[in-house]
Amino acid sequence: MRPYELIKAKRDGQRLAPEDIRAFIEAYTSGQVPDYQMSALCMAVFFRGLDAVELGAWAQAMLRSGEVVDLSDTPGVKVDKHSTGGVGDKVSVSLAPLAAACGVPVPMISGRGLGHTGGTVDKLLSIPGFRMDVPVPEYRRLVREVGCCLISQTEAIAPADKKLYALRDVTATVDCIPLIASSIMSKKLAEGIDALVLDVKVGSGAFMKKVEDARTLARTMIGIGAEMGRKVTALLTDMNQPLGRAVGNALEIVEAVEMLHGRAPADYTEVTMALTAEMLVLGRKAASIAEARGMLEKVIADGSAVRKLKEIVQAQGGDPRAIDDYSRLPQARATVDVVPAPRDGFVTVIDTEAVGLAAVALGAGRQRVDSIIDPAVGFTLLRKEGEPVKAGEPVVRVHYNDPAPLEEVKARLARAYQFGPQAPASRPLVIERLE
Amino acid sequence: MRPYELIKAKRDGQRLAPEDIRAFIEAYTSGQVPDYQMSALCMAVFFRGLDAVELGAWAQAMLRSGEVVDLSDTPGVKVDKHSTGGVGDKVSVSLAPLAAACGVPVPMISGRGLGHTGGTVDKLLSIPGFRMDVPVPEYRRLVREVGCCLISQTEAIAPADKKLYALRDVTATVDCIPLIASSIMSKKLAEGIDALVLDVKVGSGAFMKKVEDARTLARTMIGIGAEMGRKVTALLTDMNQPLGRAVGNALEIVEAVEMLHGRAPADYTEVTMALTAEMLVLGRKAASIAEARGMLEKVIADGSAVRKLKEIVQAQGGDPRAIDDYSRLPQARATVDVVPAPRDGFVTVIDTEAVGLAAVALGAGRQRVDSIIDPAVGFTLLRKEGEPVKAGEPVVRVHYNDPAPLEEVKARLARAYQFGPQAPASRPLVIERLE
Repeated sequence: MRPYELIKAKRDGQRLAPEDIRAFIEAYTSGQVPDYQMSALCMAVFFRGLDAVELGAWAQAMLRSGEVVDLSDTPGVKVDKHSTGGVGDKVSVSLAPLAAACGVPVPMISGRGLGHTGGTVDKLLSIPGFRMDVPVPEYRRLVREVGCCLISQTEAIAPADKKLYALRDVTATVDCIPLIASSIMSKKLAEGIDALVLDVKVGSGAFMKKVEDARTLARTMIGIGAEMGRKVTALLTDMNQPLGRAVGNALEIVEAVEMLHGRAPADYTEVTMALTAEMLVLGRKAASIAEARGMLEKVIADGSAVRKLKEIVQAQGGDPRAIDDYSRLPQARATVDVVPAPRDGFVTVIDTEAVGLAAVALGAGRQRVDSIIDPAVGFTLLRKEGEPVKAGEPVVRVHYNDPAPLEEVKARLARAYQFGPQAPASRPLVIERLE
Repeated sequence: MRPYELIKAKRDGQRLAPEDIRAFIEAYTSGQVPDYQMSALCMAVFFRGLDAVELGAWAQAMLRSGEVVDLSDTPGVKVDKHSTGGVGDKVSVSLAPLAAACGVPVPMISGRGLGHTGGTVDKLLSIPGFRMDVPVPEYRRLVREVGCCLISQTEAIAPADKKLYALRDVTATVDCIPLIASSIMSKKLAEGIDALVLDVKVGSGAFMKKVEDARTLARTMIGIGAEMGRKVTALLTDMNQPLGRAVGNALEIVEAVEMLHGRAPADYTEVTMALTAEMLVLGRKAASIAEARGMLEKVIADGSAVRKLKEIVQAQGGDPRAIDDYSRLPQARATVDVVPAPRDGFVTVIDTEAVGLAAVALGAGRQRVDSIIDPAVGFTLLRKEGEPVKAGEPVVRVHYNDPAPLEEVKARLARAYQFGPQAPASRPLVIERLE
């Protein structure tokens, strides 16, 4: 089927044959199919969707556009976790050493922050010396010997996805569930994993604002996993406020280490425990979620989770002393407490995307692909949703180096917070579980 | 509005502001908006459509991407006709001199054949010496002095449409009514016309196979005309069989000249008369269709229509003697009569697109933009729909130079014709009139 015919067939609602999808994506990756044909196809997919078989073929073609890492020399069920992105989402930083400390090999390719969401790559790179551009042979060795390796996406992994993502980003075809799902799954499956836990964020700080959309995305990714013989479990988790209290790269590392000591905010701890427990079950280290949680509590209590994180940091060139001595992490020169509560009462709403954009404005995240971030800056949320406030009491501490963006940051944060006389009803952190 | 936002807005079913459409098309024409953004937008338009105001802005932006000819120095209402394309459609060749002979100035930009349909440009270029690449000042002079000029699309006229058409052709966004309508109208309005008659073909040989689609296209073009202050009348005409008996460029010129002598097949004559009468009314040379028809019959009977054609041919560098002496037109070296009727009976169906594709295979039309056509070759339809046949009697005469494609041509024609024991019910030639 010629590219033209394939675009037309999808446009007209026909089902595409797997071999035609493969040929189209291969030709796109090699440059034979030009961007303008791919963008037309993506827009047709936006309107017509892709069914389970088409999606499997699409994800597989992107997966096969580059190297598929073979981790078969590491025994055990290799399990990764993927989050669809949020604000204050430092789950990976604690989850990876927790799972590895319990014996689950964790091969993890992480992304950089873009838009209002932070990225695990940016957080980890705030640890002095930490390297994420680990070559594939070294990555394989570390998964085998340390039990975990955290790297950033390389040119070698799913290059079709990299090329396609850049195109979707400028042709209004990013927020299209089949394309999101196949993009994520192609990258994740190229890591060499056997199973995957998905953290699909829902709410004002997530790409999916509605539970239905998040559920559809989760089901779509589970379906792609099934088409490709991989077990996938998804949790829909709340992202109507930042997770934990720290927003900003080095600040989030501190909070993640605190979690491994059992001292982190309850919401961040609970989401991390729930996701890691799923990994232990998928990785056949625990027979039940309850058993898994017991194991996790044990590796926190006996210090082996923190030791595993230091081992990972050391193996990837970072300074493990920064895990014990936070002053070795980047420090902002100054802080200022902002957004005074207008009256006694409660925080009722935090527009989480607005908080993320305030962090970007401060320099903690990037607005454009080539923006340079400041690892030291960010926020401590002194008050979160449902917490009581007194009139005049500030609710956010801003850690900053450059005072220039402060006014904009304050204004954005002020707009993000809402207050009221009564605490809002509490929401579940884990909304739904799908597998 | 940035290009990305505009694509997203259309994708999400929002109405685009005229100034945003204009800016996008200007940026596309100048190369600032790349093809991949335009193709994504066109696919979104395929699914979401364009309303009357959007369409007006779109067509106007394409119109203004190049030169808009000013014909205000020619007195009178300048009227053109546009056909959506068919097989054996030589209407323009006789209609233009007929209207001009009745005093309506006819500025006409014609297209080349592509796909299964023929093009007026190819037909006229079979007249020895005839030139259609007339510069705009000369075109203006000929409309003023001769009353008619027939030219091919130039780089100067609606370059955005030329660029966009090439893109749509490879991204499966050609058969999209708002894009078809704005493409046609932008070119036509750039000619400097005051009014337009549309011949929207319907049937097996037309791009629009269904009356509903043809009606929508006609209404859309009338709407664009209204947005831009131009009067447009549309006739939906039958294209379930080739018009007339001649298919092929020089053969169709002969049939067109015969029409001006009053000796052409009834269907071709009737469609031409109906369309030209509309031009005379729009051009305020006749108060009614009946009066217009009387005037047309007069210029046929008194020879002034043929004289006008010779005048046009001479003015555009062609040999006017070819209009009197057909042996001066390109002649095929041989003919062969093919497709014998299988039994006594009637021709019941002619798959007209198949006849067009047989003509392309013979060399009378072009499959690709750069194909070279043979002006001499083509078909004479010895029998048309509803006409009686005797067993063994051939129904098509093939005029050919190169015998190589003959077998394929015969096979295609044989598949195009169907026979039966009874004549099919006759259909109206003019299905509907809209204004």
